[in-house]
Amino acid sequence: MHALMMDRPLTLPSILEHAALYHGDTEVVTRTVEGPIHRYGYRDALIRAKRMAKALLALGVKPGDRVATLAWSTHRHFELYFAVTGIGAVLHTINPRLHDDQIVWVANHAEDSFLLFDISFAEQVATLAPRMTTVKAVVAMTDAAHAPAGVANYEDLLAAQNADFDWPELDERQASGLCYTSGTTGNPKGVLYGHRSTVIHALALALPDAFDLSARDTVLPCAQMYHANAWCTPYAAPLVGAKLVLPGRLLDGPSICELAVAEQATFLLGVPTIWVGVLDHLDKTGGKLTTVRNVAIGGSAPTASLIDRVEEKLGAQVRQIWGMTEMSPLGVINTGLSRHGGEDRAAATRRKLKQGRGLWGVDLRIVGEDGAELPRDGSSTGALQVRGPWTASAYFKQDGAAAFTDDGWFDTGDIATIDPEGYLRLTDRAKDVIKSGGEWISTLDLEDAVCSHPAVAMAAAIGVPHPKWDERPLLLVTLRSGQTVDPETLKAHVAERVAKWWTPDEVRIVETLPIGPTGKVLKRELRGAV
Amino acid sequence: MHALMMDRPLTLPSILEHAALYHGDTEVVTRTVEGPIHRYGYRDALIRAKRMAKALLALGVKPGDRVATLAWSTHRHFELYFAVTGIGAVLHTINPRLHDDQIVWVANHAEDSFLLFDISFAEQVATLAPRMTTVKAVVAMTDAAHAPAGVANYEDLLAAQNADFDWPELDERQASGLCYTSGTTGNPKGVLYGHRSTVIHALALALPDAFDLSARDTVLPCAQMYHANAWCTPYAAPLVGAKLVLPGRLLDGPSICELAVAEQATFLLGVPTIWVGVLDHLDKTGGKLTTVRNVAIGGSAPTASLIDRVEEKLGAQVRQIWGMTEMSPLGVINTGLSRHGGEDRAAATRRKLKQGRGLWGVDLRIVGEDGAELPRDGSSTGALQVRGPWTASAYFKQDGAAAFTDDGWFDTGDIATIDPEGYLRLTDRAKDVIKSGGEWISTLDLEDAVCSHPAVAMAAAIGVPHPKWDERPLLLVTLRSGQTVDPETLKAHVAERVAKWWTPDEVRIVETLPIGPTGKVLKRELRGAV
Repeated sequence: MHALMMDRPLTLPSILEHAALYHGDTEVVTRTVEGPIHRYGYRDALIRAKRMAKALLALGVKPGDRVATLAWSTHRHFELYFAVTGIGAVLHTINPRLHDDQIVWVANHAEDSFLLFDISFAEQVATLAPRMTTVKAVVAMTDAAHAPAGVANYEDLLAAQNADFDWPELDERQASGLCYTSGTTGNPKGVLYGHRSTVIHALALALPDAFDLSARDTVLPCAQMYHANAWCTPYAAPLVGAKLVLPGRLLDGPSICELAVAEQATFLLGVPTIWVGVLDHLDKTGGKLTTVRNVAIGGSAPTASLIDRVEEKLGAQVRQIWGMTEMSPLGVINTGLSRHGGEDRAAATRRKLKQGRGLWGVDLRIVGEDGAELPRDGSSTGALQVRGPWTASAYFKQDGAAAFTDDGWFDTGDIATIDPEGYLRLTDRAKDVIKSGGEWISTLDLEDAVCSHPAVAMAAAIGVPHPKWDERPLLLVTLRSGQTVDPETLKAHVAERVAKWWTPDEVRIVETLPIGPTGKVLKRELRGAV
Repeated sequence: MHALMMDRPLTLPSILEHAALYHGDTEVVTRTVEGPIHRYGYRDALIRAKRMAKALLALGVKPGDRVATLAWSTHRHFELYFAVTGIGAVLHTINPRLHDDQIVWVANHAEDSFLLFDISFAEQVATLAPRMTTVKAVVAMTDAAHAPAGVANYEDLLAAQNADFDWPELDERQASGLCYTSGTTGNPKGVLYGHRSTVIHALALALPDAFDLSARDTVLPCAQMYHANAWCTPYAAPLVGAKLVLPGRLLDGPSICELAVAEQATFLLGVPTIWVGVLDHLDKTGGKLTTVRNVAIGGSAPTASLIDRVEEKLGAQVRQIWGMTEMSPLGVINTGLSRHGGEDRAAATRRKLKQGRGLWGVDLRIVGEDGAELPRDGSSTGALQVRGPWTASAYFKQDGAAAFTDDGWFDTGDIATIDPEGYLRLTDRAKDVIKSGGEWISTLDLEDAVCSHPAVAMAAAIGVPHPKWDERPLLLVTLRSGQTVDPETLKAHVAERVAKWWTPDEVRIVETLPIGPTGKVLKRELRGAV
């Protein structure tokens, strides 16, 4: 028997339509690539998104077409989030930190029909666009004054259209976005988001136990809009009517602090390195961010000292989040339970070092090498697999099919434990695992242990071949500026904090660690170099 | 182009499965119909729901069957919320406050195959069940010790089954629940909820701008589970892992206060009369409810003094909600915007007297008598129509088709304004409207005006025929216990607060007002009696 409820499709334009109608004056504030701060309300954002939708149709964009961006977090990119998806096309947000060859590769793999780019990438696009075999035209996301000579610009295209436009009826299972994983091994793989998955994910993301977003919030995503859709906040913020602050190109400490103070941000998110920059700036200037309630930290795991410093300096609660491009990106997030109400600071920080707790909409399981599910006892360690309405069912063009199990789960490539309270703790990336004497050593635990030393900035543990134990850990660290420390001191510091046989045979201080396009250490390169 | 995201259906069992796995010890507490307090965790609730699902299948329940309950808010009713729906059957929650003939009528109209009932209704069921032509068997929702002689009981059925059960794969558009409107005019009409509509609604309901529910909350719904699914909280609470307190049969002030204090409730909801009882009890005893953060008041509009008293006495924020059985029930809810941060108490209360602000998922429009949409200017008054994924598209068996417009909206039967900030204000039920000299007089405003007098308990404004003006308002009021006041004083009190020509020709003090099965004044009866 069928329900008798309205069969309204869950589509992305409904989000901006809602924000324009009920939060028309609530601002989207952008630090533009050109320089000045731009601000308008959701009402005007909708008008411009509709005009751009018409401009894209006039350009010749067809439903299902992939339309690429090479762009920072700006209001124009925000408009494209709705203009492209709202006409049934697919927004392919290219990560500009990929190598040039990879940028060309993903554009060709996606068969992008158009490319819109920020002027920071003008020279790069001039070289790369001719190699993008399916791209019919490029558009500079700026006005005539700032556009490269001979290149169409966004503002002129938009000026040629009015806002008299009704979004076409869309199937909620239609593709809306395409985002390639950074691909630390092999070619990047494309995740093809849909309207339905994104809307349900945005709803879940705004819940009190996730990002806790209301119409009284100001959201400042310090993750770029090409990075898992800035963790979906450009959809979740208008859905609840929150003010949205887009930081453009600049994610350094001073730039973020300036925006956060000026716009009275209540919610920030970003990878750990962002907060190191923010804290260093606040330390130097004696500044404070007094309006922030919550800071979500993800992308890689924050250290205990980072969590403590962010909570002290920002007067905010830290919520660690673990997610993946393949999960839109929300996997788990670390919010407390009733029973944690009385925990002291040290206990709270210990809890917050776990990646987070499972929420409705993300099924989690850990499986052993035989594929059997392991107990949720906080110590059994296995391959983490996930399932849910905002998790990918396949990669674009069926790449990487081995990551999808026969019984419908996605194998994350992470190694994890789940404790009886439902908190997930990553112990490794499967490919980074160190296996010593037949047992796994957690590289994340080693890195965390050494990073708790005040002189240490970053760390990376890798396995090096060993005649007796197969592999033994080597710990590479960089120091905070102005700090010096003896490697043996660090080794002793680690030894106090981990099992004896986990203690690395060597701690080596290095000048820098190689960082990939999403801010993660490239261990593959380290393994080749040491 | 189809998205490549997992096509996981949004189904109700996924909610209880989640709660059992991640919040297994979080309690569902019930004041049982038999008397004692019952408590267990979601883990055990799932086990019992699965055993009951198997028991229902053993009884012969088939997918699509309507299974009726005549029951209060208890853990057994909670289990049926999942056991019945999880096997693809439809839970028909009959309102026991309907007249006997209406109870028989809805059971026959729904073609219920089974009836489960609380022992409070044992005598009634003995008389009525034989008149329910499709009901094959009745089950008392109790154990053998408390069940009427010769009647199957819930605990014995459950005891015969183990919990080794996998929920069948369900289509998310499958019907899950059936709830009849109280039908102050004509026969009751059935609303047929679905898995998808209920899950999306539960997600939206838990958002910070709606009920704001997290795993740290304790939800005490003071609306019965036959009343629009207790406003969907038996689904929203386990979805987020909140503790759930089910008050059984007793919604009087002392019973609610006792539960709220003992269980440390953080969120309460109910119709205005509930809070009158709660406040009277707190006044008498000098008690306090210190743990409550938010109180949602709906069903009918609270007065300014009720809002103020609840906020003062409970130290909680009042959120007025307007909803309908046809809307699962969330229509609008009154939470503030950033710009309301600095409002003083009087301004806050004035704002909170509006029914609330539109949220994503509920499209609202007001239309004039010609069907054209009216402006959102806070003064244009028209018929309120709604649309969204948790709004009914039709009534069961296509009754009342006139309420559904050709362009896909549901006509609520309410008359309302929407202000530029998006706040909805009901001015009347279409059928209660008083039209005097060709202009509408708001009965709700008149009732609100007289209820602001401290001596007044309840009020009802109705139109009485008038030779010159067609209709003129008559205001009927009941007084709070121990209070006396002169009708002319009340008339003067109203005159100070409304337009001169709205002032009723007569204010009449009466002993009681006729109350319908959902706690609303039956104006139809009043119009017949005066």
